[in-house]
Amino acid sequence: MTSQPIADLSADDLAALLEEQRKAYEELKGRGLKLDLTRGKPSAEQLDLSDELLTLPRGTRDASGTDVRNYGGLSGLQELREMFAELLWVEPEQVVAGGNSSLTMMRDCLVYLMLFGGVDSERPWNREEKVRFVCPVPGYDRHFTLLESLGIEMVTVPFNEDGPDVAAVKALVAEDASIKGMWVVPTYANPTGATTSQEVAAELAGMPTAAPDFKIFWDNAYALHHLTEEEAKSADILTLAAAAGHPHRPIMFASTSKITFAGAGVAFLAASTKTVAWYLDHLGKGSIGPDKINHLRHVQFFGSAQGVRDHMVRHRQIIAPKFEEVDRVLTERLGGLDIATWNKPQGGYFVNLDVLPGTASRVVELAREAGVALTPAGSSFPYKRDPENTNIRLAPTMPPLPEVTEAMEAVATCVLLAAAEKLAAEKA
Amino acid sequence: MTSQPIADLSADDLAALLEEQRKAYEELKGRGLKLDLTRGKPSAEQLDLSDELLTLPRGTRDASGTDVRNYGGLSGLQELREMFAELLWVEPEQVVAGGNSSLTMMRDCLVYLMLFGGVDSERPWNREEKVRFVCPVPGYDRHFTLLESLGIEMVTVPFNEDGPDVAAVKALVAEDASIKGMWVVPTYANPTGATTSQEVAAELAGMPTAAPDFKIFWDNAYALHHLTEEEAKSADILTLAAAAGHPHRPIMFASTSKITFAGAGVAFLAASTKTVAWYLDHLGKGSIGPDKINHLRHVQFFGSAQGVRDHMVRHRQIIAPKFEEVDRVLTERLGGLDIATWNKPQGGYFVNLDVLPGTASRVVELAREAGVALTPAGSSFPYKRDPENTNIRLAPTMPPLPEVTEAMEAVATCVLLAAAEKLAAEKA
Repeated sequence: MTSQPIADLSADDLAALLEEQRKAYEELKGRGLKLDLTRGKPSAEQLDLSDELLTLPRGTRDASGTDVRNYGGLSGLQELREMFAELLWVEPEQVVAGGNSSLTMMRDCLVYLMLFGGVDSERPWNREEKVRFVCPVPGYDRHFTLLESLGIEMVTVPFNEDGPDVAAVKALVAEDASIKGMWVVPTYANPTGATTSQEVAAELAGMPTAAPDFKIFWDNAYALHHLTEEEAKSADILTLAAAAGHPHRPIMFASTSKITFAGAGVAFLAASTKTVAWYLDHLGKGSIGPDKINHLRHVQFFGSAQGVRDHMVRHRQIIAPKFEEVDRVLTERLGGLDIATWNKPQGGYFVNLDVLPGTASRVVELAREAGVALTPAGSSFPYKRDPENTNIRLAPTMPPLPEVTEAMEAVATCVLLAAAEKLAAEKA
Repeated sequence: MTSQPIADLSADDLAALLEEQRKAYEELKGRGLKLDLTRGKPSAEQLDLSDELLTLPRGTRDASGTDVRNYGGLSGLQELREMFAELLWVEPEQVVAGGNSSLTMMRDCLVYLMLFGGVDSERPWNREEKVRFVCPVPGYDRHFTLLESLGIEMVTVPFNEDGPDVAAVKALVAEDASIKGMWVVPTYANPTGATTSQEVAAELAGMPTAAPDFKIFWDNAYALHHLTEEEAKSADILTLAAAAGHPHRPIMFASTSKITFAGAGVAFLAASTKTVAWYLDHLGKGSIGPDKINHLRHVQFFGSAQGVRDHMVRHRQIIAPKFEEVDRVLTERLGGLDIATWNKPQGGYFVNLDVLPGTASRVVELAREAGVALTPAGSSFPYKRDPENTNIRLAPTMPPLPEVTEAMEAVATCVLLAAAEKLAAEKA
């Protein structure tokens, strides 16, 4: 086994390596694996942490005395709004507590913008000739799917270590009024783990935009999802935007999907009070109010904002070893070979693996045939088109630790084989 | 106190009656009432019937072994779909179990139709020059608000004892392709309590429509909400439409909002399997799946479809006396005076009170000033315009029985005073 850059190998050595990897891969296929690293789902062990929710709430009145079993209460339980306002660094009146999906809140906001326009729009977006969004890449596949489904075109910029590439964003939004918004996953971004710095956030909040109703969809899905004791703090985008004279620019989203139960948590939206009123006005046309029993359940389960933070430490204790294992296997198997780079995230749910350009889809194909499901290559890009065919998103939280090891060993074999195949073909 | 038609009174007797009613009304105002007959909400006593839900589910696996705590399962728990398929007389694969609000499912369907078009549309509805809906009146205010918010124009037809006026509907839809759909609350309609007959349903299912993608929004909100032992059976609209060659015409909605917890129940959509696939495809872009824990909770609570029917009998035992009380007070106070008619519903949540034409808004105003909140006059009509100013919707389920009595005595006084005012002014 080599540990020098594969590209430096002689043709003979490369042929030998290829043969070696083919054998390793055949051996791998023989194992009949059935492993899945596709989606950022919490594991059963993580879900168990919240099982007390199954026998809550005690009583059916909220702090104001309202019977949470009945209709109403569109903006959500006040005490839950207060708890998450503290965690998201916003004011309670800027927060709406909703249903079980922040993705639904994002979709609803986009639909309202398309059909009705925002608080600062000249007209509904679907009456514009064209609507475009800036998408930092790699990013979250479902953000892109949402935009595509609504006919919103996507323009990419790099997602750097400190957030979206500000110069690239500014150049796009300054002149082109068809660019109506952008996505940002500010904390431990999906999939690179990058956290947007205070400085970048301030620039995004204050930059001149040709569109008067430019929106930042600030999806703070991993605000509290630290993997180390060094906890990143989200930039305070609402305050920054208000201070810069663009109070209605950001709409923040978050949820407890990766805090309590993935399918039965509570989602949050935070924005200027005027934007909150706009959202509730449209939402109210088709809602009887959120599930307030589930709100009360969460209030009682957490007890306080500190209760949420304490709960996240227990998640970290379960999943941090899995992320360490991903890094350990990749380092051991691929270190020094110059055919892959990956990050060691400080939070969030993903590892971003960049393999030899041109081989990502081959790696995913090889893994699939060996019984290891990976997110399809290109998923982290709009229209599923990774221009370099290099990016693979790994999600190690769901499988138990021994399966993470097994899956990553398999992935390493596939990365090696795909690289050897490519380089051998080039030298032939 | 008279019990002959007021209109037949001499001018002197009418003046005396007016004076008498003014005194009665002043006395009423002096009581400082604070009563509410506005919304069709279940009472606390009804909600108590489902309190076992607060400590369910037992376990977190559904019948297929899936962990209901995690993401996924867009169409809902299979066993819950089967249970409500039986209750709604459809097939399980035609049913989606969703979140806590059928109104949200209706809104989503309308939005998808507007933005994308239906399975049988030539283009998205918002690319049509005009989109109109047939609205049987009186009807449900939130249906009308939804349409208005989306810019869909409303055309009214009478809602008769056996359902929408078929001849009027047919005349509208046959020639005008801009008429894309209609509302029907088929069972114990809001607010008249009328149930659409099998014959009317068959005609609606089979009638020729100029629009190829005409939709019947079949809101079966009160399918199981009987007030007597004589239980109306909903017409089987999906089968009727399929048999008539229009399988994609109806979309049925229902929920447990008035069965378990109003704000934390489960909503259902039923339609052709192709329409279900269409709905799920669009829904999936912005959803992580419904709250499957709440689905499992409901499955365990009910046990079976028969469990749901048994549960509804317990509701009936609580609310039927309130409806009887409404009828008793109105009969005692207004019978024979020829200034009001009302129905005695066999199910549902409302009593439809028609007062002397021109006086409905005055009655509501008088009641409000006496501390009795009634639904604003006109609410049961599109754009809140009751052409006769005669219709008032009464919702007696929420207040305890003694408050229903008190509120209805007050309403009777207001109806009498408003009628006396009007007739006296006409004779003056």
